[in-house]
Amino acid sequence: MAPVVVELMTTTARDLQLADDTAAAAHQQARVHQVGEDDEEGIKLAMAAAPAAEAFAVQEPPADEEALAERQAEVARLLAGFRRHLEDRSAHHLGYPYNLDFDFASLAPFLQGLCINNLGDPFVESNYGVHSRPLEVAVLDWFARLWDLGPGDYWGYVTSCGTEGNLHGLLVGREVFPDGVMYASADSHYSVFRAARMYRVRCVKVGTLVSGEMDCDDFEAKLMHNTNSPAIVNVNIGTTVKGAIDDLDKIISTLQKCGFHDRFYIHCDGALAGLIIPFLKQAPRVTFRKPGIGSVSVSGHKFLGCPVPCGVVITRREHAAVLSTDVDYISSRDATITGSRNGHAPLFLWCALNAKGRRGIRDDVHRCLRNARFLARRLRDAGVSAARLNPLSITVVLERPRDEAFVRKWQLSCQGGVAHVVVMPNVGVDKIASFVEDLAAKRRIWYPHGEGLRVGPCVAKDIGQENCLCSGLHNVSDRS
Amino acid sequence: MAPVVVELMTTTARDLQLADDTAAAAHQQARVHQVGEDDEEGIKLAMAAAPAAEAFAVQEPPADEEALAERQAEVARLLAGFRRHLEDRSAHHLGYPYNLDFDFASLAPFLQGLCINNLGDPFVESNYGVHSRPLEVAVLDWFARLWDLGPGDYWGYVTSCGTEGNLHGLLVGREVFPDGVMYASADSHYSVFRAARMYRVRCVKVGTLVSGEMDCDDFEAKLMHNTNSPAIVNVNIGTTVKGAIDDLDKIISTLQKCGFHDRFYIHCDGALAGLIIPFLKQAPRVTFRKPGIGSVSVSGHKFLGCPVPCGVVITRREHAAVLSTDVDYISSRDATITGSRNGHAPLFLWCALNAKGRRGIRDDVHRCLRNARFLARRLRDAGVSAARLNPLSITVVLERPRDEAFVRKWQLSCQGGVAHVVVMPNVGVDKIASFVEDLAAKRRIWYPHGEGLRVGPCVAKDIGQENCLCSGLHNVSDRS
Repeated sequence: MAPVVVELMTTTARDLQLADDTAAAAHQQARVHQVGEDDEEGIKLAMAAAPAAEAFAVQEPPADEEALAERQAEVARLLAGFRRHLEDRSAHHLGYPYNLDFDFASLAPFLQGLCINNLGDPFVESNYGVHSRPLEVAVLDWFARLWDLGPGDYWGYVTSCGTEGNLHGLLVGREVFPDGVMYASADSHYSVFRAARMYRVRCVKVGTLVSGEMDCDDFEAKLMHNTNSPAIVNVNIGTTVKGAIDDLDKIISTLQKCGFHDRFYIHCDGALAGLIIPFLKQAPRVTFRKPGIGSVSVSGHKFLGCPVPCGVVITRREHAAVLSTDVDYISSRDATITGSRNGHAPLFLWCALNAKGRRGIRDDVHRCLRNARFLARRLRDAGVSAARLNPLSITVVLERPRDEAFVRKWQLSCQGGVAHVVVMPNVGVDKIASFVEDLAAKRRIWYPHGEGLRVGPCVAKDIGQENCLCSGLHNVSDRS
Repeated sequence: MAPVVVELMTTTARDLQLADDTAAAAHQQARVHQVGEDDEEGIKLAMAAAPAAEAFAVQEPPADEEALAERQAEVARLLAGFRRHLEDRSAHHLGYPYNLDFDFASLAPFLQGLCINNLGDPFVESNYGVHSRPLEVAVLDWFARLWDLGPGDYWGYVTSCGTEGNLHGLLVGREVFPDGVMYASADSHYSVFRAARMYRVRCVKVGTLVSGEMDCDDFEAKLMHNTNSPAIVNVNIGTTVKGAIDDLDKIISTLQKCGFHDRFYIHCDGALAGLIIPFLKQAPRVTFRKPGIGSVSVSGHKFLGCPVPCGVVITRREHAAVLSTDVDYISSRDATITGSRNGHAPLFLWCALNAKGRRGIRDDVHRCLRNARFLARRLRDAGVSAARLNPLSITVVLERPRDEAFVRKWQLSCQGGVAHVVVMPNVGVDKIASFVEDLAAKRRIWYPHGEGLRVGPCVAKDIGQENCLCSGLHNVSDRS
């Protein structure tokens, strides 16, 4: 059997780039949403939907040489079309906090014949030599220092995603306090509640303020019901929907006030904003210098930007041992959740950190905040109900667009009556302007009788009238 | 802030390939093991060790333009040197079951500006449009069919590694039988025992035969101690060290004999051999048609070959619901462990499956078995204590080499007194011959007084004299 390279070389990088003319064929197989007003719109929506899985069914390569060549050409066409589809989807992407502003094509040689696997502990070299531990450790050092732990004082690893960071941090918390009760605000990422179920830990859901922050009065009340059990607390550094940052200092003082002194473990879920707030002077500090901070996690593909989902979790060195298992056959210790770990992710993170540095990330943060304010202003000017709930957040909350096809086209993430746009480094003013224009045009169709009046749904019912930028213009009949 | 692409473009793919002359510099920073007999050997061992992490410390990009250009050149040099190191390590790799016989450089365009994330359920499209679900589903269909479940009857996903497959399968088992007891043989992957601890499930370790298979007599005895609790059983389709395949039929009949009729859930950990035994007529069948089979997992970077660790887990459709969480904001259901999921992995798997097909994989399997026999023969001829314990296994167990540097050079994985070589599709006769030659030469240095006699340690104490190919030649004094 010839190695895979022979067959795949019919699809070179150049082929893929030149194959745009063949891409249309693949897209004819796309599911077409029945919502377009005209042909052009229909094509756009076809592009928005993922191509049908049936077109991609795996086929046995034909034995006949001519048929094989044909099949290989078809595979190349499918891939080229699929790539064009992904490019279109990237261009219209607004709702998820993924920074798409990178180009790692230069690292292609690392994909040739190299299976880079950082299996096990990043600090204990395994016998498997094809790993990127030196770069991983450099990345971890950088993040540990960001949160005020020196190289000798922390343990951590590059994870496969933000969820794995939460799974790890909360598991460490449970091992430190086996009879602990977990607390997380209702606006926490769903992986936090999943972790509680996986780990068989009782989880108490704490209420949130309209901003999405944890309600510390409710937290206090709930702590007082469980003063006998240590507390494992998930603190959100940027909630998924509203971008809210829990008040870490108030959470700690509430714990202390309720008598939990040394009996609490805090995991900070900093998926998105964990890499934003260190660069804002007015933001609360996430630092291991504060009492009870056990672990901090952040995603790598979010604010920094990376072609693969990944993240970083950092914990205090003394906590790491509670999970560690000696594994003779890989000649390594392993305290990670997944064992085999993607070795390309540290390579991407390392390149991004070296290219940007703290200064580059700070510049990105400030540009994103400016652009988020610009988006909120533009939406308000267009009569759209919208709010930026948190001065430190790059998330803009707006009315959930009436049409699912529009939501899909711009890949907005929605919850209840609101949608949100995350103004990431790759979301510039042009993209913002074109989004607002598109939305305004659609609203004239959805709400044809609203000339001069504030029309359409309002986010006030989800986020409070005092937070809604359109207050004073409310059309009460639309708020039901 | 300029996007990362600007800075990274100083390191193009071509630069990396041409920069071999600068690689030596990076390798001077490598830790040198103090074991070489001559200079050449010293260089080889320096290459075997990972470059020092210090050389890779992340640095703030200099503000000064000239200094910035210099730093960018240094980053390019570091990457080029690191790639050469990884290439060398791949060339000497024998102990881990990773098939390095692929070349996905043609997929480089998929790394440019695309963050492919199959977050959540593969069968429920999320609003995030940059995903590879159509290819993922095609890959899953292929695997489900391999294990006799039709498209409508299974649920599953592409995981980040074999461990995640085990974590998922065993979690489903626990949710199906919340008061179940877990059973796993002592030779199971460490992730199985970790899962039991994570999930707070009582785990009973079952003894193994000398071959590494589960000892069903011991299994029966242990089941009889817990007849009141349902059984969650981990079945190894290829153990990590000995390549043993548990006797699935005997395990099922033991459960039935002990009265567990409908009260058991079997997870098959097929990390490596899950993709080997379907192509061997004489092998036991892994199939969902057998009673109690709840989930099967396999790694993608092992027998098939993939530049990133990944895997596939398949479970019965009716079991998937027990884990499912509705997640409004990603407009998706999620029953996966990790949430955000690497979307490149399905792309690699899809390309590999289309290129090879069942016929190509079958050819690989038979060639690997031939080569494993060849290696065992060559080792025996060279007087090395070695065994192939299982006629269906591509793993050759041999005496643990005396010198840790040799183990590291060839990246053998070791446990107790044995090392193992996994004869993967990328391990050809040339590599085998050069390994045996190197080992024989080293043994003449380690055991200088053994002319004409069987010398050195023997694997018999780990695997039984009846399984050792050198029986009859044993030098008893060396076996202590």
